[in-house]
Amino acid sequence: MSIILFDLAGADPSLRFSPFCWRIRFALAHKGLPVETVPWRFTDHEAIAFSGQGRVPVIRDGEKTVFDSWTIAEYLEDRYPTPAIFGGSGGRSHAQFINAWADSVLLPGIVRFIIHDLFEIIAPQDQAYFRTSREQRLGRTLEQVQEGREDRLAAFRDLLQPIRLVLRRQPFLGGAAASYADHILAGTLMWPRCASRFELLDAADPVAGWFGQILDLYDGLGRQAKLP
Amino acid sequence: MSIILFDLAGADPSLRFSPFCWRIRFALAHKGLPVETVPWRFTDHEAIAFSGQGRVPVIRDGEKTVFDSWTIAEYLEDRYPTPAIFGGSGGRSHAQFINAWADSVLLPGIVRFIIHDLFEIIAPQDQAYFRTSREQRLGRTLEQVQEGREDRLAAFRDLLQPIRLVLRRQPFLGGAAASYADHILAGTLMWPRCASRFELLDAADPVAGWFGQILDLYDGLGRQAKLP
Repeated sequence: MSIILFDLAGADPSLRFSPFCWRIRFALAHKGLPVETVPWRFTDHEAIAFSGQGRVPVIRDGEKTVFDSWTIAEYLEDRYPTPAIFGGSGGRSHAQFINAWADSVLLPGIVRFIIHDLFEIIAPQDQAYFRTSREQRLGRTLEQVQEGREDRLAAFRDLLQPIRLVLRRQPFLGGAAASYADHILAGTLMWPRCASRFELLDAADPVAGWFGQILDLYDGLGRQAKLP
Repeated sequence: MSIILFDLAGADPSLRFSPFCWRIRFALAHKGLPVETVPWRFTDHEAIAFSGQGRVPVIRDGEKTVFDSWTIAEYLEDRYPTPAIFGGSGGRSHAQFINAWADSVLLPGIVRFIIHDLFEIIAPQDQAYFRTSREQRLGRTLEQVQEGREDRLAAFRDLLQPIRLVLRRQPFLGGAAASYADHILAGTLMWPRCASRFELLDAADPVAGWFGQILDLYDGLGRQAKLP
């Protein structure tokens, strides 16, 4: 029986761009677990009310409901240990830092490049909620936040330096093979890839090379994702 | 037989402030390995010429010579596996990212607060080399780099946000107990602690609370370190 994943979708239901849902898509694929995704929109409160909260990813695995990407990753590792996504107890603990860095540095870094593009691809019924909540959080209009992004590109790319340093020593964040650390970062980069046509990465950047390898993993799961 | 560690020292040989050497001090203490430190100055080229390069930390373990903090940490884990500092293969791979973040974000973030304080505590014979090499690297005088540091404190403290997010979920970077990830970050913070009287951390910050716990580990190894 497949695991059900409630997965953020755009106006076009085949556009899937949530960085948190993508972390879980990669983790499920890594473990070879079949998944059935359910397109979900920000305003579909009722569809996931059974989870007791209002955000995706949410999974249903038989009778079990789990939400929050980190919690889902831990659930999957405990329930389906092989092949591992954390690489042991230290791998799990240390992946917390990579998750925290992605959430507190990478996501806020990316949002300023794609927020208006995001607005344009989400479902019409989500747009008012999205604009209001994001403009309140960011203190400016979506248009203002995204403005002048070309000039901010170099500073954004500097933020990726820790990834580059790791890739000098090993092919993946997980070492010789991809781990949940790679899923976290590549999942985060699926967000701009699937929501915007803006080229955030320099093709010559080792980070782009590594991301390309992740896109090709799991029968090209990331590569095949619909682009906007 | 003790492991010999060549350890960067100030004019006062009991002042030890290298962030890289501290990572190894903590790792050795974690493993309960006796160490004999040899105070070393930047210009003591001959003292570590046997290692084939010019920087510390360098360790001698019997006939074996190892340099570079990451390489030493791996050597220690392979040669003396218990108690582990990495927590398995995933822990080792993922610690690379934390090491890379410390080196590319934390160290450059800290240097601008303490570079002139550092200059004042290093050995007189090191000062000309230190000033020239650092001013060339930073493009300004040591005095200029450190200037106005109070105004930059909030921005620096923002950089620590990934650590704070991790500490909301677990007491140490390593999870329930300290690991080499904690040694990396605490070792990095020993640098400003042992080279400057400037208070980089807010005492109310969870990062300061965690750092205080690391200072108390290993019979108070960090706590007992000489302050400038």
